[in-house]
Order: sequence, then structure tokens, then C-alpha cells
Amino acid sequence: MIKEEQLNPTRRRRKRSTREKLHEQRGGGIRTDAVRGGMPGGKFRPLSESDMRRIHTTALDVLEQIGIGDPTPSIVEVAIPKGALLSERGRLCFPRSLMEDLIDGSCKEFTHYAANPANDVEIGGDRVHFRTCGEAVNIFDYETREARPSRLVDLYDTARLADRLPNVHAFCQTVVATEHSEDAFVHDINALYAQIAGTQKPLAMSTATPEHIDHFISLLDLYLGREGAFLERPFFNFGGCPIVSPLRFGADNAEVLVKCARLGIPYDIAVASQAGATAPAALAGSLVQTFAETLATLGVMNLISPGTPFLMGTWPFISDLRTGSFTGGSGEQALVSSAIAQLSNFYGLPSSVSACMSDSKLPDAQAGYEKGITATLTAMAGCNLIGETAGMLGSLMACSFEAMVIDDDMIGNVMRAVRGIEVTDETLSFDVIRDTVEGSGHFLDHPQTLKMMQTEYLYPQLADRGTYDEWKSTGKRDAHEIAHERVKKILAEHYPVYIDPAADARIRERFPIVLAPEDMKPGNGRW
Amino acid sequence: MIKEEQLNPTRRRRKRSTREKLHEQRGGGIRTDAVRGGMPGGKFRPLSESDMRRIHTTALDVLEQIGIGDPTPSIVEVAIPKGALLSERGRLCFPRSLMEDLIDGSCKEFTHYAANPANDVEIGGDRVHFRTCGEAVNIFDYETREARPSRLVDLYDTARLADRLPNVHAFCQTVVATEHSEDAFVHDINALYAQIAGTQKPLAMSTATPEHIDHFISLLDLYLGREGAFLERPFFNFGGCPIVSPLRFGADNAEVLVKCARLGIPYDIAVASQAGATAPAALAGSLVQTFAETLATLGVMNLISPGTPFLMGTWPFISDLRTGSFTGGSGEQALVSSAIAQLSNFYGLPSSVSACMSDSKLPDAQAGYEKGITATLTAMAGCNLIGETAGMLGSLMACSFEAMVIDDDMIGNVMRAVRGIEVTDETLSFDVIRDTVEGSGHFLDHPQTLKMMQTEYLYPQLADRGTYDEWKSTGKRDAHEIAHERVKKILAEHYPVYIDPAADARIRERFPIVLAPEDMKPGNGRW
Repeated sequence: MIKEEQLNPTRRRRKRSTREKLHEQRGGGIRTDAVRGGMPGGKFRPLSESDMRRIHTTALDVLEQIGIGDPTPSIVEVAIPKGALLSERGRLCFPRSLMEDLIDGSCKEFTHYAANPANDVEIGGDRVHFRTCGEAVNIFDYETREARPSRLVDLYDTARLADRLPNVHAFCQTVVATEHSEDAFVHDINALYAQIAGTQKPLAMSTATPEHIDHFISLLDLYLGREGAFLERPFFNFGGCPIVSPLRFGADNAEVLVKCARLGIPYDIAVASQAGATAPAALAGSLVQTFAETLATLGVMNLISPGTPFLMGTWPFISDLRTGSFTGGSGEQALVSSAIAQLSNFYGLPSSVSACMSDSKLPDAQAGYEKGITATLTAMAGCNLIGETAGMLGSLMACSFEAMVIDDDMIGNVMRAVRGIEVTDETLSFDVIRDTVEGSGHFLDHPQTLKMMQTEYLYPQLADRGTYDEWKSTGKRDAHEIAHERVKKILAEHYPVYIDPAADARIRERFPIVLAPEDMKPGNGRW
Repeated sequence: MIKEEQLNPTRRRRKRSTREKLHEQRGGGIRTDAVRGGMPGGKFRPLSESDMRRIHTTALDVLEQIGIGDPTPSIVEVAIPKGALLSERGRLCFPRSLMEDLIDGSCKEFTHYAANPANDVEIGGDRVHFRTCGEAVNIFDYETREARPSRLVDLYDTARLADRLPNVHAFCQTVVATEHSEDAFVHDINALYAQIAGTQKPLAMSTATPEHIDHFISLLDLYLGREGAFLERPFFNFGGCPIVSPLRFGADNAEVLVKCARLGIPYDIAVASQAGATAPAALAGSLVQTFAETLATLGVMNLISPGTPFLMGTWPFISDLRTGSFTGGSGEQALVSSAIAQLSNFYGLPSSVSACMSDSKLPDAQAGYEKGITATLTAMAGCNLIGETAGMLGSLMACSFEAMVIDDDMIGNVMRAVRGIEVTDETLSFDVIRDTVEGSGHFLDHPQTLKMMQTEYLYPQLADRGTYDEWKSTGKRDAHEIAHERVKKILAEHYPVYIDPAADARIRERFPIVLAPEDMKPGNGRW
């Protein structure tokens, strides 16, 4: 039996002088540099090198012998002269040597820019970052405990919330403005606007309509105050799902790919197959097919514009074969997502995978462990940009503000583990141990402890670490309740003015912006 | 935006014939062999080989130059003739070559027996298992949302609950019978009894009193029906904390170690230091000291009885340096626990580490992710017996029945990830992909899917994988609520009769058993 005094020895000791020293050092709140985005992963290797080679080789066989169906005319036009072939069935096949050349010549590292350069994210190697994503059609409502259709203001609110979450390194569209789902242009232009209004972290969204991209760029140039400014430093990735599994192009999204390639701006892809439904039930087979599908789009990008940044969003999803439903929170999902990160890193390709996708309907223990397991393994595998994180629930059917802040805290823990253990003469601490054993017998007094306090340890913003008595005295709240308080506080206070008022006027003059100025200020009745 | 139809394509298809086939195959409930205890970990390697050697070398320096204080006479008596030295300060020092010999000669693999041999656990290599532990002094009460002092019946109830949890591979004492804490013998003998009455999985408990062990063995021989039977196949590990950090022996527990060594029965140790308090704040230093402390006890065991099974329970705990409190749910804890598993495997020593120790007070999202992250990394690092799992909350201050069943489901996910991805010609699925692309276009119809359904996928017992509508129609419950229903059902039904009535009569005649027979039957008013 371990007694409370053993576990909390400093409490028992009540060593005022040391506590005072600690308090003095921290100045009312501890700042630590224990974690940051971009720390290297790669210490988890689900696949052997031989496994990786076999998956890759089979994926190349698929591209050469089966190919991708329904290639659009603009893809065929560029691919055939460069060595791709059309099969008898009209499928676009990539000979092995062509695909190997395209992989070799592809972009291996790039900067995912942010409007505020301090938030730039360096993609490549085994550097690990987390971002939101999901484009859910619902917000999980804390008060009613129901999923209600998401609206434009929700997208804006999730962006402002993410702006204040230290472990969310980039923002990709969380929810759809469902009230505008009938008008794709109004939806997309307002979604873009809501995101630049809410955060200056690196941004991304999908659009199914290549024509929208010119308008996006015009709006972003107005935001930046100068024509041509956006293309010099594209801080908003566009993308989508140009593949319909198994192994077909989806026409509209494929044209967005072609458009981005022609403009030479990053393309942010998500190829989301589903094992047992639109991909093989065998996990290895689902990796083969989905990796082949992503390589095909990488190929198209590089046929048009060699070396343009391309984020390998290979997202093999898992089904629960009892019902056929998608299950993003499974152990199988953790495995295939981390295997894809490892495989992408093996070939030096910038990776995005999906993780933190709970099947639970609310931020409960199930959501916690499903997210924790998938986030941990994909991060440890060294994924560059782990998507669908922070907020997503119900197998991507809803986003929750409260889950966003809980997940941010969780990602902190994961990133602390990613950082690993520094082993040096100093940290091995032989002298510290001897001094203490022969001296006070307690490490709290040792200068190393004071020093390490701000470098070795992460102090979570939300997680409860008190005693049962303390917990009881503060209302016996669970993480969902504690998170709700934090959400209300951040969203009532944080109304950033990232869009210059003069630029805003020009944007609103030219584009049908429906996000009301009064919804972008305190006192709007939402928070 | 991913639409519900994309994510749930089989729902949309309503392909009755295939659904019927699936249903036929599963026969009303799917049995899968997707996971089992003992699958190999080792794919997560937090430390480099050089890091491991440096930690090990420094630990040997500590044992040689600083040594362990307060050695008991029986330890000194056996250690000095074999080459250990007493320092001027009276500390027991192990010369490097002596310790290396002791490690070389120690037991590397052994069977953690169970009363039912079908539940035997093979310890060693990088085989992964999970067990309960904690010896908490409270039960978290679902109804009142409070931690109340745990009682003997609670220990019995947690044992019978664990008996029905497929991913809990072994049972170590979960809670203390606090009503008997004044009488160590009555406590210990009843704790032993409650555990053999509740489960036939491999068992373990600590005792601070070596004299109790003879009584334990007598009781277990009565249980087995023959004198001497227990020692032939010891299915109950005894142990404790023979080290008081930093680097001192604790007299009573050290004598339990000596007793087990003399009897040649497995010793199940836990050396629980606390970084920043009773060990260095530098994580590497806390590994050095705690590993040295465990090696010292391994040394004592092997000086007395070379090759006796010894479970290296190196448990470096983490403090939150803002308050000095233990924080078992931190990312730092996940790191040091998995590093210890890796280090133990590197030297071929059977390992137990602590994980799944949330700081949250109830089974909420925080508990979920803290447990998920620590369980995942220690399992992936290849720990043989991951302890403190299933049920523990509040930094080991309480055990929760509901958390036990939630954690069991979580461990299933972790073990599915541990199993990894089989890469073979068959699983790579080239032909399956080609057949499907050129045929029906959907994998649900493919024979591989039906076959893989029962081998490739784990179907959780508790996790909610339905739609929001289904969730709403069943009462909008969270994991804690769903778990409570399952706890009530199992504990109302599962009253195993593992102790033969005749043996029970003999046991009760000889020992002061206070667990009432009426508390071991349905209708006792508890469930």
C-alpha cells in the first residue's frame, strides 16, 4: 500500500523556505519550454523495413497494373506525354519507373506558412505537429448534450479558440457552415473569411470547386494589403479528396489538385478509404491501396508542377465490420495511421494522417483513451501534421469546443512524451544523487530541481492534479465541466482583430461576407 | 467535408445478402482472436542504445560508489561473503563485476502461474500483459461521486469483476480492506482469501511482514487440497517495496524479500521513487537511481537464491513540482515507465512498470487520455506486466469499478495496436484489390472481408460506435454511465465458487476469515 504521504512527500514536509523559493522563481505562474511543435518523432516503428518495402512495392504494382479510374481530361492531357498510360478500361496507369521518378523529384520539406510568421510550421523529416480538421456538420452542444447543425459563427469560434490553444499548431476547417450548404461559393468564401478572422496559425480548407481558388487568392491579397502577396507566402492550404476509393479520381476535387499544381501552391490532400468497404479488410491491403491512391495524386501534382509542396494525406479509415460503420477510435486506426506516417517518412514524403477521431459522442473516458492512443502512436511514428485532432467526436460527425481544449491538454502530454529523455552527464545526475544521499536526503532542496522545474516538466492547463478533498471543494467536476468553463472564458474574451478594418471594408465590398461584425465582438449573446 | 454516407457506406448500401452472410457467420455475437495477452511489444524505443548503456553504467556506479543504506543483518550476512562491501557510512555497495554477475545469473523468463493453468502468464522477452494493482485506500463511488474508504468486500468484488475482463491478464491487490488496517494479519489473510475467492487469474499482493508468508502458504495449500502443492506451482506472488528512496532498504519489506528468496518463490517488487522529491528531477537521473534501487534488490534475491523468478518493478514516479504532488497521469510518467520497460528488456530482465495511473478523480476524458497514453507507450515498449492498470484513479488514491471495465476496453485497443500489422502476400491484397476494382467495386462482398472479420478486428465490449441518433435513443450516456450498467450486471451475476466448500471449511476453521459467506452470494444487497 502506498500512502498519501509517500506520494506527496513535499506536502507532508511543508518546507516553507523551498516552497517560497519555488514560488519566487515561478512568479505566480510557471512558464516552461517543455514542449513545442516540430519535435522529432520516429521512435515508434510499427512496420519493419521489409514490411515497408513490400507495401511500397505492391502499391507501385497497383499503380502500374490496375491504375486509377476516371482520369479527368486535364490529367490525361499532362500525364500521357510524360509516360503514364491509359489501360483498355480507360484507367490511368503509372509505370513503376515513372512513379519512382515522380517521388524522387517531389517536394520533401516545406514551410506551412502562417499569416503571423511566428506560427510558421516546418513540414518534413519526422517533425511532429497537430492540427484541427474534420469539416463536421455538427457542433456538440454542452448544455443540451446534443449534436446540432454547425453554423458559420461556430467555425469562427473554433478558430478563435484554437488561436489560444498552445498545442494546436495549425488550423484546418473544423465545421461546415451548414446554413450556407446550398451555395458553395457563399459557404467557401465565408469559411475562408471566418478562419483568417479567428486565427493566425497556418490554415487549410477543402473546396470542391477549382474556380473558387482565384477568389480565395483575391480575398487573401486584400487581407494582406497587396496584390500578389498571397502567392509569395501562401499561408492557406487548399485541398480536398481527389480520390474516390477504390482507385478512382473524383472529378471536381481532382480539378482543384490540377489548379493548385498550376499555381504552384501547396496541395493538402485527404484520401480516405475505408477498410472492408472501399479498401481491403486486411490492414496491410488497406495501406497498399490508400498509399497507391495518394501516390497517384502526388504523381499528378508533380507531373504538372515538379517539386510543389504536397501534403501526403493518406487516411486509411477503419470499419466496424459488425455494422459497416466507420470507427476512427479503434486500435486498428491507431495502427494504420501510424504505419502511414512511418511509411511516408521512410520515403521522405511530408505526411498528414488522421488521429484523435473518437467514436464517442461526447468528451468522456472513451473519447479520452481513443484520442490518447491514436494521437500517441501517430506522433511517436513521426507524422508531420496529425489531423482531425482537437475537438472531433462521434466518428467525425461533430466538433466540441470542450473537446478542443481537453485535446489540447492531451496533445501537450503526447508532445512531452515525443520530446523524450535527454541523457547527458548532467541529467544522469550521479553527483546530484550522491550529494542528496549524503546530505539532506531530499531532492526538493537541490538546485537541479529548481532548474529542471522550468525545462523538464510540462504543467497542463486543464488536467486536475489535486487531492480528492480539493476536488470535492471545487464542485466534483469532470474534465467536460472544467473544459466548459475554460471555453466560456476564452471565447468571451478573445476577439482578435486580425483583419485590418480598412482591408475588411474592401473585402466586404467585393465578397458576399455574411459573418456579421456584431458576431465578432463581445456581447454578441453567444458567450 | 466527409458525409455520413461516405463514412458508413455499408449502411447506405443496405446490402441485405451480405449482411445476412455476416450475421450467419457471427452467430449472434462475434468472437475474434484479434488480441491475446503476451503479444510482443518493443516497437517503441524511447532510448537509444547508447542512452541505455549510459543509464545502466551510471546505475552500476551508484551501486558501487554510493550503495544502499540501512541493509538488514540478514542481507549483510549473505552479501558480504559473496563480494559486497560495507562503506564507511554503513551502506551496502555492490562492486560492478559482482552486480554484472548477479544480473547474468538472474532468472530471465518464468511462468506467472494461475490457479487455473489456462490463465498462466509467460513473463519475459518483450511479451506484454496488463494487471490491476494499486492497493488504494478508497473506492470511487458511482452514485455519490465520492471516494469512500475501501473494504474487504470491495477487494473481493474487484477480483470477481477482473475475473470477467478479458484484457486484464493478472490481478494484483486493487484496494485495501481499510476496516482491518489495525490488524495486519487479519488484513493480509483476508485480502489473500478475497482474491482467491474472486478470480483464478495469476495473483499478487504485498505484505510488510515476512511471518505472514508461511500462513499464506498454509492457506493456499488448503485451497489446493494438499500440503506442499503451492510451492510446486506458486500462483500467488508476494512482494512489496523493500527500498525507501533514495537508496535505503526498508527493514520489514526487505525481510519479505529475504523470505521469498529463501523459499525460492517469485518476488514481486515495486520500487517507487518520486522525481524531484525522492529521486532527481532530471528524468534520466530518476531512471538511474530507481534502476539502481531495483538492481540492488535483484542482487539480494540472487545472492540468496540464484535464478529465482524476480519481477523488476522499477517504478520511477513523477511529481508536479508546482505542488510536489505525485502525478501518475503525466506525459513524463509515460516516458519514464516505457524507458524502464525498454531498459529491462535490453538486459533481458522480466519487467513490471506502472501505467494507467490517472490524476483525475473519476473516469472522465482526462482519465481516458492519461491512461491511454501511458498504457500505449509502456505496452509498445514491451513491458511484461503493466501494473496499476484497470480502475485506478486520483493518483492511486482510489479504485473505481466503472474505470476497471472502461480500462479493460481500452487495453483491448492497446493490445490490438501491439499486435501490429501482418504483412504477407495474402494481406497485401493485390488480387483482392484488382478483383474488386474490376468487379463489384465494393469490398464488403469479398470473401477476404468475411474471413478477416474474425481475425483482423477487435470488437470492444463497451465503446459506443453507433450514430448520434442511436446514442440519443439510448439515453445519451457517457462511458461512465455505460460502464456502471456493465459493472452492475457482472457483479450481480458472477459469484464464482473457486474455493471448494470442504477446503473453505478447513480454511475458515484455521484462519480468521471475516469475508462472510452471505457476501459471496447473490442477494447480498451490494449489487
